[in-house]
Formats: sequence, C-alpha cells, structure tokens
Amino acid sequence: MNLFDESVPAFIRMLKNLERWLDEAETYATERGFDVEDLLTARLHIDQYPLTRQIQAACDSAKLATARLAEAKAPVHDDVETTLAELRTRIGETLAFIEGFSAEDFEGKADAKLYLPFLQGGYVVANDYLHQFALANFYFHITNAYAILRHNGVKLGKRTFIGHMNVQMPEA
Amino acid sequence: MNLFDESVPAFIRMLKNLERWLDEAETYATERGFDVEDLLTARLHIDQYPLTRQIQAACDSAKLATARLAEAKAPVHDDVETTLAELRTRIGETLAFIEGFSAEDFEGKADAKLYLPFLQGGYVVANDYLHQFALANFYFHITNAYAILRHNGVKLGKRTFIGHMNVQMPEA
Repeated sequence: MNLFDESVPAFIRMLKNLERWLDEAETYATERGFDVEDLLTARLHIDQYPLTRQIQAACDSAKLATARLAEAKAPVHDDVETTLAELRTRIGETLAFIEGFSAEDFEGKADAKLYLPFLQGGYVVANDYLHQFALANFYFHITNAYAILRHNGVKLGKRTFIGHMNVQMPEA
Repeated sequence: MNLFDESVPAFIRMLKNLERWLDEAETYATERGFDVEDLLTARLHIDQYPLTRQIQAACDSAKLATARLAEAKAPVHDDVETTLAELRTRIGETLAFIEGFSAEDFEGKADAKLYLPFLQGGYVVANDYLHQFALANFYFHITNAYAILRHNGVKLGKRTFIGHMNVQMPEA
C-alpha cells in the first residue's frame, strides 16, 4: 500500500458522487421550475466561495494532489466555467487525468520534498502533505459543494454523499 | 503503513480543529451578543441534522471506525448533550478513546470481515469499509458542522478547517 491507495480512489469516488448530486440538482430544478444554473452562484455565506468555485476547487485539489504526489505535470484549467455543462466537462477532464495514474506512479515518493507555491520557499514532505492538507482540502470543497446544494433544497442525504460500498454476503 | 495511518491521525486532527471552530463560535457569539447555545439547533435545511447531531455523529464516526478497524469495544454515548460544554466533553472523551490506539492495534486487520449492524447480515472488508465509507462519513459530519457554523456567520475559513501543516525550510 502506498499514498496512491489513500488518495486517487477517494478522489475518483467522490467526484463521481458529485456528478450524481448535480443530476439531483437538475431533477429538483425541473420539479420546482427554476433554472438550475441559478444554483451555481449560491453560497452558504456572503464571503464564501459559491458552488461553481467549490466545484472548480474540488477538481483542482484532486488534480494537483495527484500530480504532486506522482511528481507529474497537471493540465491547466483557467476557471472560466459559467454553466453546469461546462462544470461537468471540468469534472470529466479531472477524472480522465487522475484515472491515468496507478500505484506504481506513487512508488517510493512518500518522502519527496514538495516545494508548493503557497509555502513561501518552504517544503512539505509528501506523506505530510497528503495527511495534513490534501485529503482535508479535497473533502472541504466537495462537502461544501454538497452543503450548498443541500441548503437550497436539492434532495440529497448521506447515502448519496457516500455512494456505493462493497457489501458482501456470507457463504451459505 | 497500515489502516491506522489513514484514519486515527486524521480523526484526531479534525476533532481538535472542531474544538477551534467552537472557540470561534463562542467569540462570535460574544461579539454579536447572542447565546452561543442557539447555534446548536441550527441546520442548513429543515430535514438535515442540526449542529449538535452533526458533532455527535462526527464523534461517533471516528470512535466507531477506530473500534471496528482495531476490533476493539467502543464506549457508548447516548447522544444526550444539550449544551456546548457537554459537546466539548463528548469530543474530549472521543479523543481520549481514539488516542489510546497505535498502528500495532491495526496490524494485520485490513482483511477482517466487518459485520456491521446496518448491513443486514452482510459484511464489508475492513479495507473497503475505511475507503468506501468511514473516512467519507467522518468528513461528511465534521464538514457539515463547519458549514452550519459558517452559514451562521462564525468567522471560519479553509485555514481554520485544515489546521496545522508541517512546513519545513530548506537547509541554508
């Protein structure tokens, strides 16, 4: 087991769950007769990121964490999405990028020193970066996206948040 | 590395961060002259758990995941907290319990079959349980607690959510 197992599968799972929450948002908008795009500027407080920015940040936190831990180059996204369709494309491109990695790409890199742009010349060891920042950062944005939808009445609950679990039945 | 490294340290970090968010809630209540306990019944939507229940569930998700993965017995909490002081005690008791575990307690248990009460006679393998349920479940409740406070104006941001990261400076 290496850092791949803790990161990429969770990013993929939750980004695919996010796609389901957006499906629910569209269903709800149709039921209630409002424009689903109006949800994109919703936020929980005036100085918080709105839904569009939470989704962009969830995508970037998955993309950048994957690239940094694998010491790979990440594709650039310019945060220009203004429609739900464009945000879905952004999620799809993020998934396509991170799905290209495997545990081998992360092998032996848990002790790498990561000089990140926001560390002012300092570095964080890859293992610390994942456990002290990257996972919490990803869950922060994706759960705030969920919370904004939930606050606005989209029919979501914990089961939709978490998605599928591999439950098995005992042999007879 | 085993499942301990992915779970208990994150639970401890985030529960301690939650204590800081509650400090900020108290500061904000004092500044604005409202009773901080009034936040405990706040929620993002009428059919969502209020703050008290999110905190109880965050504590339980950390406690139960730790106990299940270590095949240990968890202390019982009856969800009777009605004040911020009682919720702080609950968080403290949860921390005291999970801080008692080490990686050794999780050794060789990643393949254990966990027959959980909500699986209707089925089981989930410990490794799947952590990656497909327990971590997302914990972040779900703790981030919704954060979101409820944030929505109500408590001065929180991503830095407060994530907490300390071990940044190091290169040798001269």
